[in-house]
Amino acid sequence: MTRDEARALDAADPLRHFRGKFALPEGVVYLDGNSLGPLPRETAPTLGDMVDRQWGERLIRSWNEGWIEAPQRIGGKIARLIGAQPDEVIVTDSTSVNLFKLIVAALRLDPSRTTIVTEAGNFPTDLHVAEGAVGCVPGATLKLVSRDQIAEAIDETTALLLLTHVHYKSAERFDMAAWTARAHARGALVLWDLSHSAGAVPIDLNGAAADLAVGCGYKYLNGGPGAPAYLYVAARLQERLANPVSGWMGHAAPFAFADAYTPAPGMARWLAGTPPMLAMAALESGVDLMLEANPVAIATKSAVLFDLMRSIGDTLGLDCISPGDPMMRGSHISFRHPHAYALCQALIAEGVIGDFRDPDILRFGLTPLYLGYEDVVIAGEKLAAILAGQRHLAPTFSKRYAVT
Amino acid sequence: MTRDEARALDAADPLRHFRGKFALPEGVVYLDGNSLGPLPRETAPTLGDMVDRQWGERLIRSWNEGWIEAPQRIGGKIARLIGAQPDEVIVTDSTSVNLFKLIVAALRLDPSRTTIVTEAGNFPTDLHVAEGAVGCVPGATLKLVSRDQIAEAIDETTALLLLTHVHYKSAERFDMAAWTARAHARGALVLWDLSHSAGAVPIDLNGAAADLAVGCGYKYLNGGPGAPAYLYVAARLQERLANPVSGWMGHAAPFAFADAYTPAPGMARWLAGTPPMLAMAALESGVDLMLEANPVAIATKSAVLFDLMRSIGDTLGLDCISPGDPMMRGSHISFRHPHAYALCQALIAEGVIGDFRDPDILRFGLTPLYLGYEDVVIAGEKLAAILAGQRHLAPTFSKRYAVT
Repeated sequence: MTRDEARALDAADPLRHFRGKFALPEGVVYLDGNSLGPLPRETAPTLGDMVDRQWGERLIRSWNEGWIEAPQRIGGKIARLIGAQPDEVIVTDSTSVNLFKLIVAALRLDPSRTTIVTEAGNFPTDLHVAEGAVGCVPGATLKLVSRDQIAEAIDETTALLLLTHVHYKSAERFDMAAWTARAHARGALVLWDLSHSAGAVPIDLNGAAADLAVGCGYKYLNGGPGAPAYLYVAARLQERLANPVSGWMGHAAPFAFADAYTPAPGMARWLAGTPPMLAMAALESGVDLMLEANPVAIATKSAVLFDLMRSIGDTLGLDCISPGDPMMRGSHISFRHPHAYALCQALIAEGVIGDFRDPDILRFGLTPLYLGYEDVVIAGEKLAAILAGQRHLAPTFSKRYAVT
Repeated sequence: MTRDEARALDAADPLRHFRGKFALPEGVVYLDGNSLGPLPRETAPTLGDMVDRQWGERLIRSWNEGWIEAPQRIGGKIARLIGAQPDEVIVTDSTSVNLFKLIVAALRLDPSRTTIVTEAGNFPTDLHVAEGAVGCVPGATLKLVSRDQIAEAIDETTALLLLTHVHYKSAERFDMAAWTARAHARGALVLWDLSHSAGAVPIDLNGAAADLAVGCGYKYLNGGPGAPAYLYVAARLQERLANPVSGWMGHAAPFAFADAYTPAPGMARWLAGTPPMLAMAALESGVDLMLEANPVAIATKSAVLFDLMRSIGDTLGLDCISPGDPMMRGSHISFRHPHAYALCQALIAEGVIGDFRDPDILRFGLTPLYLGYEDVVIAGEKLAAILAGQRHLAPTFSKRYAVT
């Protein structure tokens, strides 16, 4: 595709006006919105109001003027993005902490079901936290299997199938309804990690009869670095599950200051400490923006961006490891390359920000809200020039950073 | 004390210049900094840089430009406020989540020690979380006793004595060194909740041979509503304790993306999810400001503010429940009054913001950094006028808010 062709596609893009709603730096092609979403322009004034007026002027009174309801209010907005009811989602803690709470709770539901089944190579925090959660429930064990062995690993001892909807490396997507039905047929619950899919692909938790889910706020929801996370519990399960991290904000009457813990009804029981309001404000701003977009337009554009990037990769001899079928993947594309790390660094030096995942994955986020077709063409041109000139083999690109 | 006398004291106050470093609203006397610290003026531009430049311009690259080290860096600063070494404190999660992690870890240290001893009427989240944590360790139990029974409750089955350094209602302060020694003599560890004392009274964790501590960032540290919390683990215990909420940021090599969890050395293992950078930036700004102040000047002024407020209360016939000895209390003062809730509301209507704690406590934070003697005199005048006019008995002040 030529730059002119790409510009024509951009001009006809029904999502094009969203680009101006983000403060994208000049001269940068940002292909890492799947790791850290960029800054929505509206977030700075929203946060300014939170800081100057709500915190600075109103001080403690703000808890009665919108703060205390924020976890439920923002949760209700995220619910619309993931096919849930407003009272099935709450914003709190990090994805890791929420995974811990739900895994322990699920393991306690039925003493005859003692096993967590999950996928080897799942996102590390899902595996690490599952390992920790299993240690908090006597007799519980963690069964780690490859993707092709998951189905047979689910049996009458399975309490929970823990799956990440879209794989962080390959972008492979599980069929949520099919896998939920498969687990239910064997009496197990499913916990979906939506971190790499919410805001990227259509999600219908209720339609899939999903039980539990968690997700992060800082990727496709553009909620800011380390934004608070959310969790979902299907209405039918809410009164049967208890939060092991039973902090005061999850109490039925937090301001009665009782010694004994009584869980709040509904989703409030999943709260623990005091909500981080500055981070909540930025998250709400990102979610509000995402709610303005048509999810069908997002899915459609994601598919075209993917095909464009893959064809560029094909031309350059890169090995694409992401599924070709848009229904089977998320909204990023990954290539395997022996010099993936150095390539990533050389691209960043040219203003094309993608990322690297150990040991040999070059990963590009294709975020339809603010990424243009021309951006992808430019990224492809720079990648081609780096490879042709072997510029990525320069010593300056060989040093590994702590985070990429 | 007359207003003129108070003004003279303010003029001679060595901490007076700090007042201008806070964005305090006009016409408000803020006596609730022990619940939510006010906005430091420097925080808005600090957060602006975090949002516009670090997030907006540098995007994902900021993780390599100071973000990833923030939990340790800010922890190291807080360490200076609480008498710890820089590598003994880390900022992460909420106080509630940190309590959970440390209580479970402490219970696992020695299987023959199965009991948590704590005080009835302790801050609710400490009790609620202890209840939840005990449920995660087979055989563990929670022993809740009144303050005068704590000493005899510590025995050879005690894993952990869980105490809040300064009581959130009464302001009573435990002698940290004496209680730590008492627990150690019986082979138990002590976990101190510093939420109501850090930044308010001198703390010397190392000097007291303290084992474990947690604390919040949004009270005397002025880190913003729901600011991230911190935890302390004495160097000698760090390699012996494991975090049950074993998230990826606590892994020895988070970006190796290994399936199996290996805890990081030192304090990093207490991290779980991705740090909330916007909230971290505001916290760091508050801590930096607190580090500029002389702790002796803070303690001295706190004592004088207390005596002034208590003498006002005495004159008005209020029942002060906070200890008279400054070494035995924190930096707030509490009065018991049958109409405490209505009095609090009537005061807020007059621009004097204190708070109410169920069922009958009127609580005033005496925060030396930004509170003047004249402020306390004004608060006393307004309180006297309300009581004299029985204005607090007006129906408008009888409705209870969710949060005060």
